[in-house]
Amino acid sequence: METGKMLLMIPGPTNTPERIMKAMERPIINHRGPAFHSLYKSILENLKYAFQTVNDVFPLTASGTGGVECAVGNIIAPGDKIITAHFGVFGERLREAAVRFGGKPVDVSAEWGEAPSLEKVKEALDENPDVKAIATVYNETSTGVTWRVIQELGKLSRQHDKIFIVDAISVLAGDRLPVDEWNVDICIAGSQKCLACPPGVSMVSISERAYTVLRENKYRPFYFDLESYRRFAYDRMETPFTPVLTLFYALDEALKFLKEEGLENRIERHRICAEAFYEAFDRAGLETLSKGENRSNTVIALWNPPGIDGEEMRKMAREVHGVAIGGGMGKLKGKCFRIGSMGIICQPYVSKTLKAVFNGLAKLGYSFPEEPSKIIAEVEAKLAERLSRLPPLHL
Amino acid sequence: METGKMLLMIPGPTNTPERIMKAMERPIINHRGPAFHSLYKSILENLKYAFQTVNDVFPLTASGTGGVECAVGNIIAPGDKIITAHFGVFGERLREAAVRFGGKPVDVSAEWGEAPSLEKVKEALDENPDVKAIATVYNETSTGVTWRVIQELGKLSRQHDKIFIVDAISVLAGDRLPVDEWNVDICIAGSQKCLACPPGVSMVSISERAYTVLRENKYRPFYFDLESYRRFAYDRMETPFTPVLTLFYALDEALKFLKEEGLENRIERHRICAEAFYEAFDRAGLETLSKGENRSNTVIALWNPPGIDGEEMRKMAREVHGVAIGGGMGKLKGKCFRIGSMGIICQPYVSKTLKAVFNGLAKLGYSFPEEPSKIIAEVEAKLAERLSRLPPLHL
Repeated sequence: METGKMLLMIPGPTNTPERIMKAMERPIINHRGPAFHSLYKSILENLKYAFQTVNDVFPLTASGTGGVECAVGNIIAPGDKIITAHFGVFGERLREAAVRFGGKPVDVSAEWGEAPSLEKVKEALDENPDVKAIATVYNETSTGVTWRVIQELGKLSRQHDKIFIVDAISVLAGDRLPVDEWNVDICIAGSQKCLACPPGVSMVSISERAYTVLRENKYRPFYFDLESYRRFAYDRMETPFTPVLTLFYALDEALKFLKEEGLENRIERHRICAEAFYEAFDRAGLETLSKGENRSNTVIALWNPPGIDGEEMRKMAREVHGVAIGGGMGKLKGKCFRIGSMGIICQPYVSKTLKAVFNGLAKLGYSFPEEPSKIIAEVEAKLAERLSRLPPLHL
Repeated sequence: METGKMLLMIPGPTNTPERIMKAMERPIINHRGPAFHSLYKSILENLKYAFQTVNDVFPLTASGTGGVECAVGNIIAPGDKIITAHFGVFGERLREAAVRFGGKPVDVSAEWGEAPSLEKVKEALDENPDVKAIATVYNETSTGVTWRVIQELGKLSRQHDKIFIVDAISVLAGDRLPVDEWNVDICIAGSQKCLACPPGVSMVSISERAYTVLRENKYRPFYFDLESYRRFAYDRMETPFTPVLTLFYALDEALKFLKEEGLENRIERHRICAEAFYEAFDRAGLETLSKGENRSNTVIALWNPPGIDGEEMRKMAREVHGVAIGGGMGKLKGKCFRIGSMGIICQPYVSKTLKAVFNGLAKLGYSFPEEPSKIIAEVEAKLAERLSRLPPLHL
């Protein structure tokens, strides 16, 4: 059994700095009073910074999947066609959400661990000129694949006058995603990933084009009605329904923390730490699910080495080293393990995680091509040097 | 501007005891690991106690309105008819949620401040034998009306083989509601009301009859899919999506607190405190929206006295006395004020609130039929005496 505080290296929730934990101790207030108005105003302003947008971004009292439900449900009415790109658990969830709203998905898929070709989306558009929207996961948390074609998909969406929905839950602030520049109409993020906030809030941005479309959809869900979020924000600086106030405090602090570090620096830190993981795992002879440019900045997914029980390694990491590592999801259960390299990821966390994984694998009989402690020492030295060029992290 | 800690006498969120605030400081953990499993197990068991049911009760990462969306969306598919009783803002929201799912509401309504007659529901059933469900708010937070016919409606629902949905968000644990005994198929509660927990979680109970119906509904919302909640709980003692962990800690503590006090004692305390408010306001010549047996145990709604600006009184209560009081909602905005008498409501809170309201009204020129301080002194003495027969409250 795990006891005490674990290093959370699962792909969310991630480690939360003390300043954000402290923010949650603030007293419960009236969500229809002046103190809430200034809190909400601060959150809304700083969310625009995080999303690099001039559009509205609203925090929802919901998990990330609630944010996806919101995005899809506002746009898709029964009978509407939607191109859904999927290449993992979360892409399939997005597709399923569309089906539940009576949508007709046009599938663009790829093997898990890979990403579809852009060509397939173009074909789907040519064959289905009547689709209402294109929706995809940017960073597939179940496979560690980042589909780096969002800018191109945004252009395509604009050319064909389609609404473009991007699930960026596990990647916003961990990789490039200039929402306006890339023509993303609805972008979804989660609190418990690169923002280093506890789980419970998802954030959704909405372009003016998206508003025009969703206003025509009389079946959009009441709880997630973005027009209603807009009206309450503009008229009173309030949410339509009682928000998860404690998490709003945390999110406000997390966004201030992000601004202090700077979005570009935050992204760069994620990239550098992920590269350290990839370098160490490559040298150790471990195989990642994603290859080349699809490798994620935030989720590192690795196949269990032949003959090695990954679940046993994860258990040892948890119990011996106090490091929580994610397992495989869906059809990958028992076949791979996943590391969340997010939020306040830094050299000591990378080192500790590498040590936990390597020690576990060694104990289970994995044969390293070179001395694992040497790999760690060299990788962490290089990592520290690279991070030293970024502003210091203040937790 | 309000500063520091306010006494929250709005109809939710309500005051949170220190033990529940402290619970939220616990570290963020893996929601797919053993520590979460024992937390979730504890919550699920204690929710059955709070709802007086042997059925499943699940905590959702959502506001109360999300719980309503869940209840309605799991049952109502496009074209389904549903009897919706409404007599205030929250009843109208429930109706609107049904409309958004393509439901066809059969309206049973009453003037705000009143409740419909049971006869109207029977007529609606006779005229619409094909309705799939009957849905109502038990305690209408916008008017302070409790519709004390849930038991009869439950019998009717069972006789006619309809699913019975009850929005008990602002009343569960504050008034009688034995879910199984009264044949409630889906009951919705909120964390931030009589459970004295911060906002951000709603709880939904589901009968086996309701499961049978919802499994046939292929349009049930993905995020709020109760079958999925059931499967994840039964198979792994987990939630389908990352939960709002911090609030789960709070809810767990709040439910333990409830068990320690005892549900019957909790309800009795709410009743006694509400009666103290009603007695004081009656003696002061103020008029409540609800009359007689419709008077709520948890929300006391009062008309602004003729010529008195209720908003000004609320502002003074907030700024001079540090007491937050609710205003009118919807078409009652500016016409009434509302007191939430919930959660850890106790004699000192009642006294402080009465003082704030009476002082404000006096300053604004309201003429009391007798000395307000005398009313308070007598009411609070009687209240203290009545509460002394209940077990002491341990915050």
